[in-house]
Amino acid sequence: MRNILIIGAGRSATSLIKYLLDKSKAENLFITIGDLSEENAQKFTQGHPNAKGIYLDVFNEGARKEAIQNADLVISMLPARFHIEAAKDCIAYGKHLVTASYVSKEMQALDEEAKAKGLVFMNEIGVDPGIDHMSAMQVIDRIRDGGGKMLLFESFTGGLIAPESDDNLWHYKFTWNPRNVVVAGQGGAAEFIQEGTYKYIPYHKLFRRTEFLEIEGHGRFEAYANRNSLKYRSVYGLDDILTLYRGTMRRVGFSKAWNMFVQLGMTDDGYTIPNSENLTYREFINLFLPYSPTDSVELKTRYALKIDQDDLMWYKLLELDLFNDEKKIGIKDATPAKALQKILMDKWSLKEDDKDMIVMYHKFGYELNGLKKQIDSNMVLIGEDQTYTAMAKTVGLPVAMAALRILNKEITTPGVQIPISKEVYEPILKELEDYGITFKENFADYLGYNPDNVVG
Amino acid sequence: MRNILIIGAGRSATSLIKYLLDKSKAENLFITIGDLSEENAQKFTQGHPNAKGIYLDVFNEGARKEAIQNADLVISMLPARFHIEAAKDCIAYGKHLVTASYVSKEMQALDEEAKAKGLVFMNEIGVDPGIDHMSAMQVIDRIRDGGGKMLLFESFTGGLIAPESDDNLWHYKFTWNPRNVVVAGQGGAAEFIQEGTYKYIPYHKLFRRTEFLEIEGHGRFEAYANRNSLKYRSVYGLDDILTLYRGTMRRVGFSKAWNMFVQLGMTDDGYTIPNSENLTYREFINLFLPYSPTDSVELKTRYALKIDQDDLMWYKLLELDLFNDEKKIGIKDATPAKALQKILMDKWSLKEDDKDMIVMYHKFGYELNGLKKQIDSNMVLIGEDQTYTAMAKTVGLPVAMAALRILNKEITTPGVQIPISKEVYEPILKELEDYGITFKENFADYLGYNPDNVVG
Repeated sequence: MRNILIIGAGRSATSLIKYLLDKSKAENLFITIGDLSEENAQKFTQGHPNAKGIYLDVFNEGARKEAIQNADLVISMLPARFHIEAAKDCIAYGKHLVTASYVSKEMQALDEEAKAKGLVFMNEIGVDPGIDHMSAMQVIDRIRDGGGKMLLFESFTGGLIAPESDDNLWHYKFTWNPRNVVVAGQGGAAEFIQEGTYKYIPYHKLFRRTEFLEIEGHGRFEAYANRNSLKYRSVYGLDDILTLYRGTMRRVGFSKAWNMFVQLGMTDDGYTIPNSENLTYREFINLFLPYSPTDSVELKTRYALKIDQDDLMWYKLLELDLFNDEKKIGIKDATPAKALQKILMDKWSLKEDDKDMIVMYHKFGYELNGLKKQIDSNMVLIGEDQTYTAMAKTVGLPVAMAALRILNKEITTPGVQIPISKEVYEPILKELEDYGITFKENFADYLGYNPDNVVG
Repeated sequence: MRNILIIGAGRSATSLIKYLLDKSKAENLFITIGDLSEENAQKFTQGHPNAKGIYLDVFNEGARKEAIQNADLVISMLPARFHIEAAKDCIAYGKHLVTASYVSKEMQALDEEAKAKGLVFMNEIGVDPGIDHMSAMQVIDRIRDGGGKMLLFESFTGGLIAPESDDNLWHYKFTWNPRNVVVAGQGGAAEFIQEGTYKYIPYHKLFRRTEFLEIEGHGRFEAYANRNSLKYRSVYGLDDILTLYRGTMRRVGFSKAWNMFVQLGMTDDGYTIPNSENLTYREFINLFLPYSPTDSVELKTRYALKIDQDDLMWYKLLELDLFNDEKKIGIKDATPAKALQKILMDKWSLKEDDKDMIVMYHKFGYELNGLKKQIDSNMVLIGEDQTYTAMAKTVGLPVAMAALRILNKEITTPGVQIPISKEVYEPILKELEDYGITFKENFADYLGYNPDNVVG
């Protein structure tokens, strides 16, 4: 029996656990699910003989160390900031570790020790980061192995509502952590390169410099720039690339409408609002509008945003019931971002039968034998239901597949890793296809920003 | 002989030193000027027998302690962050201290010790903070002493170019620290209250929510909100006030034009630009514009800002030579804010004969015997030349006057102080009049935001 300890049985763990349970007999696995809710952990085992759910508080050192000691491999599905103590224990007791989170500085600092002990610490192996790394590196490596030189790489991911459940004007619902959506893009200008030139977009312009993406059979999407597109430039071996851009996908029209909140200052997470608990939605939006003894909050809003009363943008605001003077924020010491999140959650939470959708879109521009070429690659996955969501599948399945391969010594490179080597991405991308996670490629002439080297 | 030690002989020290030298015989003063440049320090003494200039490095503990031990009172004209070691020595050796800087946490922490030793640590006694405190408190106290209840207090200050030296489209030159101008308003939303309601303006809207102020004989000005208007709410005893707003004054049109830089992201001080040293002005602005193989930087700028080619805003940009493709930023690891400052300093630095101007404008709204009334009060001072600037006078004279009065035991309240008590503001405001620093008052009916309690 090989023992896998999964720490944190949240919504994203469903597909991960199902995959491992389904393989547990054939692969001789025993899965221990540790969570702050024992009931929750046990529910996830579905009464499977090869699994048990336990109460586990990752901050209880004794309990944590004991659980890790009993495992051969640890999967941490906790938020990224909670991995590190478990990771240190994995070093101490010689256990492999898999997470879907970005590699933190603290995690990276364990690289040498992990290598010395022959341990695989695989991170960033969910969907974004995760499947984006793997699917991009597969094409980039193929281009380079064929003698091509990379000119352009753009990569976009979005966690959206499935078309069949899309019933609001924003074409958006919270299929993942709402807070991340509200504060997306904050903390500094978005940085990227286009045709060899650095470009910066300040936060207050981020949602107005979008680009459109079309996916056959799924319609049009838009994307806004992520904060740091250059993070993986060296990691991907793209130091000389001319264009490097990473973004977040939304349905068309979302960003322009979201920009209304940005412009008003309603997404600010940097200060708390006095008496926020008792503020009505109407009073909340009025915080960001000039005082007037005579003008309505509605008119002041339209004037501040320079929109007409028959503008679709206006109806998007009305749909959120933003001008309601009875509904209260109900959160003490709320920042504007937290108050806005509360208002949005009234309308953008998933209904029981709603399905989610993950979309990913890569553009690869390259030169081969003097010719400029482009490959566009996309993946669309719609969730089964609210248990096996597209998000849970795309996050959990690569984690599970990596964990099993590490146990089976098919993935062996030790140290703090992300899934950018063939050893990792080839088998996992192949297996993901069995679960409907497939990339479609379109070949085209180079459609970069300056295909003909036009001088203007 | 009473010994005054002045630490830091910068441009703002001219009027301060002249005042003290002029009084030195009658008042039995000996003034020691300590500066990192001994030559500079000596130049400031003007060969006066009651003064000497010495080399003084405030980080040289021995020299600093010795200089402070020999003084009866210390005036620190260094930047605020350099006061604290001198302040601690003043506690140790029992010396009074005067600065024109905001009270830092570290300074405030010395309050009890200063009180215990009977020392006056007078801070914020320059122009802003300084004359603004004194001139506001004088009127507020008068209103309250007469039985009035404060309803509204708005206060605005600006350091500007004098009309006779105003020769650019921006009607602005750097008469003080350019960096403070470039990063003004950054670090969080501006907060204030209007008619009892909290209001917030995000940075990217700050320069579009200005208000106009007219000063008889000096024309129109505009003002944008300071970050924290509520800082002195309790200190001034205005906890129940309905409207509290502090702002910065500029000539009309400045803010709308400055907003172009804000919108483009050129005032960001949060990241450094690769290869900034070798970037031309044209390449610098292009960092903030989308890539295009054909469109000019000029057209992209006008499009991004939505301005016509015959818009005055456009000529304001041209005047700065922003599109020059030869002039280089020439600063290593520059942030956008630093690069922009460099470009602006080419054009906005003072010429030899230029004069500066300080403007201050207060509005006091109050209720007396059931009637709402308003007092508007303003001060305008134009500098004599580039030595005795309006800035040097308004910063230095109150400092000097306070120092002399502390030595003469006319200002005696011990502890860490700001000039909001009658003991301080009455004699100093009176004496400032002799130097042309006078406030004109206009009485009016209450012109607050809702004088007639209109319901809209």
